[in-house]
Formats: sequence, C-alpha cells, structure tokens
Amino acid sequence: MPHLHVEYSENLRELDVDRLLLRLNHVLVCSGQFADELDIKSRAVALASFRVGTALQERAFAHIKLAILSGRSPEVKRQLSASLLEVLKEEIPGTPGVDIQLCVEVLDIDRDSYSKTHLPA
Amino acid sequence: MPHLHVEYSENLRELDVDRLLLRLNHVLVCSGQFADELDIKSRAVALASFRVGTALQERAFAHIKLAILSGRSPEVKRQLSASLLEVLKEEIPGTPGVDIQLCVEVLDIDRDSYSKTHLPA
Amino acid sequence: MPHLHVEYSENLRELDVDRLLLRLNHVLVCSGQFADELDIKSRAVALASFRVGTALQERAFAHIKLAILSGRSPEVKRQLSASLLEVLKEEIPGTPGVDIQLCVEVLDIDRDSYSKTHLPA
Repeated sequence: MPHLHVEYSENLRELDVDRLLLRLNHVLVCSGQFADELDIKSRAVALASFRVGTALQERAFAHIKLAILSGRSPEVKRQLSASLLEVLKEEIPGTPGVDIQLCVEVLDIDRDSYSKTHLPA
Repeated sequence: MPHLHVEYSENLRELDVDRLLLRLNHVLVCSGQFADELDIKSRAVALASFRVGTALQERAFAHIKLAILSGRSPEVKRQLSASLLEVLKEEIPGTPGVDIQLCVEVLDIDRDSYSKTHLPA
Repeated sequence: MPHLHVEYSENLRELDVDRLLLRLNHVLVCSGQFADELDIKSRAVALASFRVGTALQERAFAHIKLAILSGRSPEVKRQLSASLLEVLKEEIPGTPGVDIQLCVEVLDIDRDSYSKTHLPA
C-alpha cells in the first residue's frame, strides 16, 4: 500500500514511462499520507488494443488508479487525485491530431483482509 | 468514464479484438447512460499466463469489467452487464474441445475523487 | 467467480508462474468456499514498467488480487488472504540484493450485476 496503476494507449508514443512513474511516486511521498517511500508500488502498462468511443478520429488516453487502504477522508482522496492528474498533464502534453483524455481514480483497499510480507534485501 | 476492460485467455485465438471493442462501445453508447461517445474508454488484454481451476482439460475465459461513476441503479447495472455479455457470446462462440467461461462485472468509480482532463485534438 | 490476478515485477526472474497459479488455485479449491474448481479463473502478468518508492535500490513486488462475489465474512476473507500469501512466500523466496514485497488484497464483486455464461467443451 499504496498501489498505483497507469494504463495508457500505446499511441502516446512520446511518453517517458519511467520518468512518469518516478514523478508520481514523488508526489505520493510528498503528500505525507504514506509512512515510508518503500511502500509505494507503481506500474505502467501500455495498451496495444484499445478503443475510445465509436468515431474514427485518432484518440488516446491515460488512466491512473491509486489504491489505498480504506479510511482516508474524501478530502485527502480528492487532493491525491488532483496532484496525480497534474503530473499526468505535465508528462502528456496536448498533441495536434490526437484527442487525449487523462483520468485519475482513487480506490479503497479493504484494510481488514490485506496481507503483506516484506523480504528485505 | 466509463472505463471498460476486457481480459481474455490467449487460447481464444479466433477472437477479433478490435471488432469486439467497437461492438462493446456501441452497446454502451446505445444504452443512453453516457452523455458522449467520446467518454467510453475500452481496452483488451490477452493473458499469456492463466489457469482455470485445477483440472487438465483445455479451458478459456473472457472477463469484462465495466467501471462507471457511482450512483447508477442496480437495474441499470444489470442491464448494462447483460447487454455486454450478449456481445461476448456472439463474438466468442463455443469451440469443440475447449471449455469457455464468459463473465461481466460492473464496478463503481468513486465519483468524488475522480479527476479528468480533456486535451482536444 | 472467483477471479484471481497476480501482478509481479519482471525482475522476479526465478518465478515459476505456471506452478504459482496452479498452487494458488489449489488453495482456493481447498478453502471450501467455492462450489466448483472450474469456477476459479486466475492469471498472472509480468510488469516491465514498475517503480517501488523513490530510492535507487533494486526492489521487486508481487501483488495478488482475489475478487469474490460479495457476501463473505471478514473472517473468511482474512483466511483466504493469509492462505494465498503463504503460497507467495513459498514461491518467491528472499533474494540477496533485492528488496521484495508480497501483498494480497481481497475485493468484492457486486453480485447483483455479475453476468456469466458457460460454454462447455
């Protein structure tokens, strides 16, 4: 906890995924919501098969899901969501000829049934 | 919003993924539940590593997750789920020698912490 | 139902994914919570793009999500989570030089809008 997922349509060819993940993790560290930077586990997946709507125009999207242990306030979730979206906007600029949507969703992880083990190096 | 995910075991070799996604998006547009066709963001991922149950028989599955902003009625969710399953059944016919399961799940996105930006072409 | 997802960072090079999935499915069958072994649908995805925290140390993780139809007790969910984590720990031993985190999360599937079709072989 937290777990962060980025999905992006693979026509976002200019995206520097490693830099994006590092910047997103820095935002989460700086939020002060998580005890240890080590806890932040992020991944990104490029989508080869995708379809936005039904029109023929070239379209793209990136979607972040942030899953955190249940119990945080709506206000904290809104702030986390907005901060992550800011990074997405900076890393994925508008592109002529491509309609782009950027989204962030925050989910609760059921705290009661979450199990974890740490195997230090 | 909405976000649609298709996962399918890669032994469904005949599946036309692009056609499937387009048909699923048409169903969502036609449901009248979503304001703009542009809002529908769908993706499909083929699963190279999968296991159905514990027996040795060849098995396959496809699973749709439809994530929509919270607040829709159980009846609307049931109808969306049933409509998507109909498309899956048409696009993935029964195959001799392969046991196939097709499933549709509807999830709520927390409306309060959902963030989005649109960068038009 | 149930659906099990394993995500793992691809620097866990020694992981035998097929054996892991089979063992996880056996644990679920043996839990007595699911009527038919055929119902258990598991998949694993290797993550090529991932980032744990912000430090430079080599790190890895594996994360299981078990999605089950809503209605099971917290105690049953805790037991399922703990049993799956035991398998992860056995299949992913500690590795000198790599900091590893193993996690298990249990999610509810909305029973009311879940649709399913079975096409027997």
